[in-house]
Amino acid sequence: MERADHDLAFMLKYENVAWYDGGEVRILDRRVYPAKTEFVVCKSHKEVAQAIKDMVTQSAGPFTAAPMGMALAAYECRDLSAQAQRAYLADAADTIANSRPTTAKRMRVFCDECLKAADEALESGADAAQAIVDRTVEMNDERYGLIDRIAHHLVKKFPQGGTVMTFCFAETIVGMMLRECRSTGKEIKLFCPETRPYFQGARLTATVCRDMGFDVTVISDNMPAFVMANEGVDVFTTAADAICMDGHVVNKIGTFQTAIVAKHFGVPYYVTGAPDFAHPTIDTVKIEFRDPEFTLQAMGVRTAAEGVKGYYPSFDITPPDLVTGVATPEGIFSPYELDKYVKATDGKYRVVV
Amino acid sequence: MERADHDLAFMLKYENVAWYDGGEVRILDRRVYPAKTEFVVCKSHKEVAQAIKDMVTQSAGPFTAAPMGMALAAYECRDLSAQAQRAYLADAADTIANSRPTTAKRMRVFCDECLKAADEALESGADAAQAIVDRTVEMNDERYGLIDRIAHHLVKKFPQGGTVMTFCFAETIVGMMLRECRSTGKEIKLFCPETRPYFQGARLTATVCRDMGFDVTVISDNMPAFVMANEGVDVFTTAADAICMDGHVVNKIGTFQTAIVAKHFGVPYYVTGAPDFAHPTIDTVKIEFRDPEFTLQAMGVRTAAEGVKGYYPSFDITPPDLVTGVATPEGIFSPYELDKYVKATDGKYRVVV
Repeated sequence: MERADHDLAFMLKYENVAWYDGGEVRILDRRVYPAKTEFVVCKSHKEVAQAIKDMVTQSAGPFTAAPMGMALAAYECRDLSAQAQRAYLADAADTIANSRPTTAKRMRVFCDECLKAADEALESGADAAQAIVDRTVEMNDERYGLIDRIAHHLVKKFPQGGTVMTFCFAETIVGMMLRECRSTGKEIKLFCPETRPYFQGARLTATVCRDMGFDVTVISDNMPAFVMANEGVDVFTTAADAICMDGHVVNKIGTFQTAIVAKHFGVPYYVTGAPDFAHPTIDTVKIEFRDPEFTLQAMGVRTAAEGVKGYYPSFDITPPDLVTGVATPEGIFSPYELDKYVKATDGKYRVVV
Repeated sequence: MERADHDLAFMLKYENVAWYDGGEVRILDRRVYPAKTEFVVCKSHKEVAQAIKDMVTQSAGPFTAAPMGMALAAYECRDLSAQAQRAYLADAADTIANSRPTTAKRMRVFCDECLKAADEALESGADAAQAIVDRTVEMNDERYGLIDRIAHHLVKKFPQGGTVMTFCFAETIVGMMLRECRSTGKEIKLFCPETRPYFQGARLTATVCRDMGFDVTVISDNMPAFVMANEGVDVFTTAADAICMDGHVVNKIGTFQTAIVAKHFGVPYYVTGAPDFAHPTIDTVKIEFRDPEFTLQAMGVRTAAEGVKGYYPSFDITPPDLVTGVATPEGIFSPYELDKYVKATDGKYRVVV
């Protein structure tokens, strides 16, 4: 197993936790982290797709897990003809990219890059699985570089000694953001809503903040208004599962509500990431509903009585009038002027962030 | 043990679950209900005060638990002189009423009634503990009657086939509200935010709705905006720990946030209860903060990593501009015109709701 020597090695701990090696993909099970550090071991690309669907890894995790699943698919079909391998890999890309509807278009970008890498390897007689792993590392490097630039623009919006609210997970941007704060001498403290029903904010986001040495407080998801009213929040920021070209933001359930509350208090909301050319409008986004029973428990302990219904939309949609700015690698844009980002970057980047 | 034969017997199951009998007070432990039906047995009035402080009973539960604690105090001091018993009971009233700051003034009303009942018993040589129990039953009867009238006014605001969002607990008003719906042929369905960190909405409110035979769905506390946007909510309603005469509403953490969201969607917010003469303005209300560690776990399972801070304001304050109306026994009033309620009722009622 070989990994590139990232300057950004600190992030590997949080994100680069899906890895192909010797016929299997190991994925850190973020459903139980940080209480337990356990790995789901996938023996086929279909198991990788299932793991992504089952939320074994979240936030940017699928952008490593999906291409690693492609490497495993290349391993599975290694004894077939080159033509059959190409067909097998094309099917695998469909299976993996479609494992989670809301991020399907973004996973597709990574899977398509894997198909190109495999094509080139098959042309030259090289090992397709290894070529895909190498391409994944390249894409991660490029992605990290873009996120680093996003962090640079975002942190300028934080006042010295300010308070930032963020949640869900978004390990890379949170890690980069805090590294940027550290390197520019900007002291901040953070409030993280816990992000029910999976507690990503409590379990994952807050752990990143703590590991980076920052003052971080976990609140329940009904407290952001109280905190904004009583503690003073300077910036609300999240990553996004998709930023549509019409300025609509698709992100973890609760983003929309917190953006409404932020607007009520005049707290700016900055979403981080690149506008997604694949979503010209919000109409192309499909919101995933998950197992409704999941809102009837917490950390595996049943809360509600039998006969009570659950309800689990995993994402929500924040309209552009609630978005102060989109922090991109090229700077911060109004959600109403994302065409300017397109003009600045069209064709410039291979990966999405 | 003797209980009055309430016409409203269905509520005893939910509320009248603190009872003095033979030198002890048994309180249903709502912290674990409905998963377990267990009682905390208090052997002294100080243990009752501690149980109220520890949230063994919530919502209107303390309005029975507090006077039952007074009955136990009367039992404790039964062998003292009448004068010493009065002094002992006055101290007990202070201890019990002050066990939870936010509802202290309302528990004080009940404790003061108990002191009057004890006084009369001591004058006539009757058993003070029994006199307090009898007075508690009378007060409950009066309170139930008032809440029944509140429900009558509130339910008129529900459209036929409408959707109502409510949470925390508020067993009596929820039960009465649904009984009123049933008796007037009004079909509604309900969404209950789970009410972190104690899950009163998931565990208790939703159980009342289910037991009353209504369609009820539990959502996490980050979902109200999504539900209002996508499912259509006609009315948001809660009870209150205090309704100040200046129209500010003190209630379970999350009420303020959901009221902001409701206003965003044009969903009316009706708070139920009587304006509290003891709180002329919001400045007389003290918001309780509880053990911050409690937001770092869920149902007893740790969520956050070590080194992450918690934060636990148990109540929040909703200003009158977010309150559509206050549903009282005398009808629905604007939060800006609660003086009209005072004029209609001054001195008319012994209890608070």
